[in-house]
Amino acid sequence: MRVKEIMDKNFIGVAPDMGLDQASLKMEEHRKFATPVLDDDKRLVGWITALDVTKGFREGKKTVYDIMHHRSDVIYVHENDTARLAVLKASKYKVVSIPVLNNEGVVVGVIRTSDIVETLSHLYEIKVSKIFEAMDRELKGVSWDELMEASAIVTRRSTGKRVTAKDYEQRIKNSTFGEAIWATGGLEKFFVGLIAIGELVIARKVARARSQ
Amino acid sequence: MRVKEIMDKNFIGVAPDMGLDQASLKMEEHRKFATPVLDDDKRLVGWITALDVTKGFREGKKTVYDIMHHRSDVIYVHENDTARLAVLKASKYKVVSIPVLNNEGVVVGVIRTSDIVETLSHLYEIKVSKIFEAMDRELKGVSWDELMEASAIVTRRSTGKRVTAKDYEQRIKNSTFGEAIWATGGLEKFFVGLIAIGELVIARKVARARSQ
Repeated sequence: MRVKEIMDKNFIGVAPDMGLDQASLKMEEHRKFATPVLDDDKRLVGWITALDVTKGFREGKKTVYDIMHHRSDVIYVHENDTARLAVLKASKYKVVSIPVLNNEGVVVGVIRTSDIVETLSHLYEIKVSKIFEAMDRELKGVSWDELMEASAIVTRRSTGKRVTAKDYEQRIKNSTFGEAIWATGGLEKFFVGLIAIGELVIARKVARARSQ
Repeated sequence: MRVKEIMDKNFIGVAPDMGLDQASLKMEEHRKFATPVLDDDKRLVGWITALDVTKGFREGKKTVYDIMHHRSDVIYVHENDTARLAVLKASKYKVVSIPVLNNEGVVVGVIRTSDIVETLSHLYEIKVSKIFEAMDRELKGVSWDELMEASAIVTRRSTGKRVTAKDYEQRIKNSTFGEAIWATGGLEKFFVGLIAIGELVIARKVARARSQ
């Protein structure tokens, strides 16, 4: 996934010669804590945050130019960078948003941590049953009921609790990948559980083939 | 994972009777775009953002009380809520941070979207080889080399490209879970690939046991 797929194209910008009153009004109206400073061709010349504005007001500064961070000090990403790079930069520099440039240095979007949270959290919101459905399609000659039965057996073995195939099916329909990895104690442990189920179901399939 | 495990305990707070100058200085020094308003017992009475402060400055307001959002309008989470709930709230309300309360209504921390990005991105940063190591430990009687060989075969089958077991081993040591799910086109597809590998390796183990 590329930066351009998760960036906000409806970003706002301010001009260097804009008054602080006007710039703060624009930021408040659009509820933006930070915004790029653009020249007439929409090229990045700087960056301001709401905290630069509060400081500017207190110190009697007049224009955006007086308070802005100049381009050389601004963290940015390219529209063709991976979304992962934007995630790493947002996390490393603890910024609320990052301007996105094209090859001409023109600002084409802004990436916000709130957009990143939304994108990342989608993964966590996938239902566990979707993974089992994929597993069921992949494992030829194994029925859904056999898969649930094997899952219940593995769960009983590892937790010691009595769980039926029906209980298990209900549970994976209600729980998300995020809940499952948090509940099992991590991605690797979650996956180990799936492998144990896969191994049991395949062993049973082989045994059935042999007895026929 | 609970809210209290990912919240920032070193948060700042402001008092309702604090002057705007003093409050903005404190927010700038600590680089906080938003902060809880607390009474003398650290109970939540309101919330202000840097954009409330810029508006307050423009309109000649004097104290935090004059610009704050009152408690009934503030989004918050409880320290024992799941981290997932905080993620969903941050995503839904597009806020930069959320105060965390205990049973007495006392603010015990603040959750920031940047902390959430960091926590969520950890999952994406897990090396794919860690998952294979877990798989190797789980599958008794299958060696690491057999696992890599099966992985190379499954990759050749699905992509048509010649990949050796050594190539595959190198690739999973260098790539992260995030890259892998983005490259394979989603979580389910990534798991389907792993399950295909698991199935092949188990089939080979069973065949070997039978021939002995």
